[in-house]
Amino acid sequence: MPMKFLATKDNLLNGINIVQKAISNKNAIPILSGIYLKAIEGRLLFAATDLELGIECRVPVQIIEEGEVVLPAKYLSELVRRLPDTNLMFEYQPETVSVKITYGQAETNIMGWRGEEFPTIPDLKDDYSFNVNPLVFKTMIKQTSFCANSEDARPIFTGALLEINNNDLVVVATDSHRIAYKKGKINNLTNEDFKAVVPIKSLIEISRIIKDDHDDLLNIRCNKNQICFENSELRMISRLIDGTFPNYTQVIPNDCNLLVKCKKKPLQEAIERANLFITEKDGTSVIKFHINDSNINISSKSDYGQVDENVQVYMEGSQLDITFNAKYLIDALKNMDFEDLEITFGGSLSPVVFRPLNDDKFLYLLLPLRS
Amino acid sequence: MPMKFLATKDNLLNGINIVQKAISNKNAIPILSGIYLKAIEGRLLFAATDLELGIECRVPVQIIEEGEVVLPAKYLSELVRRLPDTNLMFEYQPETVSVKITYGQAETNIMGWRGEEFPTIPDLKDDYSFNVNPLVFKTMIKQTSFCANSEDARPIFTGALLEINNNDLVVVATDSHRIAYKKGKINNLTNEDFKAVVPIKSLIEISRIIKDDHDDLLNIRCNKNQICFENSELRMISRLIDGTFPNYTQVIPNDCNLLVKCKKKPLQEAIERANLFITEKDGTSVIKFHINDSNINISSKSDYGQVDENVQVYMEGSQLDITFNAKYLIDALKNMDFEDLEITFGGSLSPVVFRPLNDDKFLYLLLPLRS
Repeated sequence: MPMKFLATKDNLLNGINIVQKAISNKNAIPILSGIYLKAIEGRLLFAATDLELGIECRVPVQIIEEGEVVLPAKYLSELVRRLPDTNLMFEYQPETVSVKITYGQAETNIMGWRGEEFPTIPDLKDDYSFNVNPLVFKTMIKQTSFCANSEDARPIFTGALLEINNNDLVVVATDSHRIAYKKGKINNLTNEDFKAVVPIKSLIEISRIIKDDHDDLLNIRCNKNQICFENSELRMISRLIDGTFPNYTQVIPNDCNLLVKCKKKPLQEAIERANLFITEKDGTSVIKFHINDSNINISSKSDYGQVDENVQVYMEGSQLDITFNAKYLIDALKNMDFEDLEITFGGSLSPVVFRPLNDDKFLYLLLPLRS
Repeated sequence: MPMKFLATKDNLLNGINIVQKAISNKNAIPILSGIYLKAIEGRLLFAATDLELGIECRVPVQIIEEGEVVLPAKYLSELVRRLPDTNLMFEYQPETVSVKITYGQAETNIMGWRGEEFPTIPDLKDDYSFNVNPLVFKTMIKQTSFCANSEDARPIFTGALLEINNNDLVVVATDSHRIAYKKGKINNLTNEDFKAVVPIKSLIEISRIIKDDHDDLLNIRCNKNQICFENSELRMISRLIDGTFPNYTQVIPNDCNLLVKCKKKPLQEAIERANLFITEKDGTSVIKFHINDSNINISSKSDYGQVDENVQVYMEGSQLDITFNAKYLIDALKNMDFEDLEITFGGSLSPVVFRPLNDDKFLYLLLPLRS
């Protein structure tokens, strides 16, 4: 007997929404525009993959007969969204390779593909493994991912470094102009250190689809080529990026000429206002800091107006004039979730480091521009 | 002494948001990309116009010196959104035709235009005038405006008819394939009947910017060329559309061969599902009703699947097969705010009329397609 099960609209939508992120519209292989469904052991398994990223999840259904099929994601998703909140019967029709969905006095048929034609999403076993609190992990991705490029001719800059160092998890992202670094605790002890470069797209997707549930730890497993993220609800597999990640520790300066401490918000708002009146040069909005007398002066001028902002700060060291790409400053300040900022300068052409006050878990490094 | 006033961020944003709808990005006259500001009698007047549509509103400010200026809407709006929630001092600089805005230890200058160069937004006096509850008016616009085209080679179809008939306000919109009609009470008595065709864009904007406040009646005034909408907070002037609006009463059939009564929601949902599996012909999604035995059968089929829906209805009259543009049906059902529907059919090629059950205040007429 072919596959047959009863499901609720909510459970189906939940499964579709989770795996849909792995479907690429650009894929030339038709079956990869589909969602694989397998009714087995009281649950419906959903799977989707673009061969670089694969996602699987399970939802409860009432199985009459076990089985599998692949249905086009677009039609399945649009149809289920429009179905009534009633018992939905799904029944595989082997002759036509379609699924008949019945509800009330109506029925729909969606054409599909045979389940056995769908590529298997591999499992990673006996590999490097650790657990992390999903909220900690999400914060780490949010505070670093904006520094990587989702598209870049240099593949290494389309990923972020995941590193285990003395039982700390470190995430680092860079596009060669700026670096974001965030450190967090893992929930188990490992003896071995470890490194992998994960596509930034995969990290953003996994941090979007996992729920904000402290108790449902995220297990991360890795081999040389792939990384797997798994919790009680879902599993995602992504390829890794080949190549050597830049040695970020070498770039972070140890000493400084000028230390500034200030509130983040007034500085961010002053920069955002000044950014309105900057004339772009070669696509770059250039913003100038004049730091002196416990004050950061930020000024800009264009044909439409001008801004002259003064932000009072605590400073130690000598005065400095320095120039930045305004976009890189605004990006970074937006993604910082703390109030008090410590900024260290090494000179007008040396890397500048932004840190939360008295906290070494986050760091943002930015190269100034030649003025 | 030049214009000078103290304002709060919230009041400024409120004014900007209301008048901004009248600014067209396509306008070739530079000053029309600006917002006119006039500090007078304890309030700041905001005005904007694209010469077809003009909006004015007033917010309280603390005036030090009265005066006027025009500032570019884009920069004013983006800047005010980024200003701190503090006292903001605006000061006109006649030498540079700019406004200096000071807040805390910072200042911004925005370049502008002289106030006297801004076109006056005329007032309509001693014209045809009536008052309407703003909630009644908003519902009337929502339930009819989807039938008009905001762009059409035939100008009359870019407007809706506003008609006063025996102290009822009637709004009618059509694109020549369908008609939506809605009747509502006005809040005063007039002896005279009246008609005007108002650009649909203006009607949608005014219904968006007026607040949901029963007590702040909307006054509508009209002359041969313009219409004015005014409440305690704002005033909008729009040009009218020249030409004769189609005689819609002639098109609405008086008798029918088939009467159907049903719940709106199941019919709407069945049509939306069927619409997923329609192959478009010349850009039109064609949907078929087979009405018989107290049942509307709706079926569709494409390469991706098929739908067979049955909606139980009450019917009086003979069976019928009829074909519609699915988009026109879905549009209309989405915008109807009632549960019980009465549909009258005159034959497979005659106009079909949708009404709320036992209610003559709304009507939607749709021409079927040749199948």
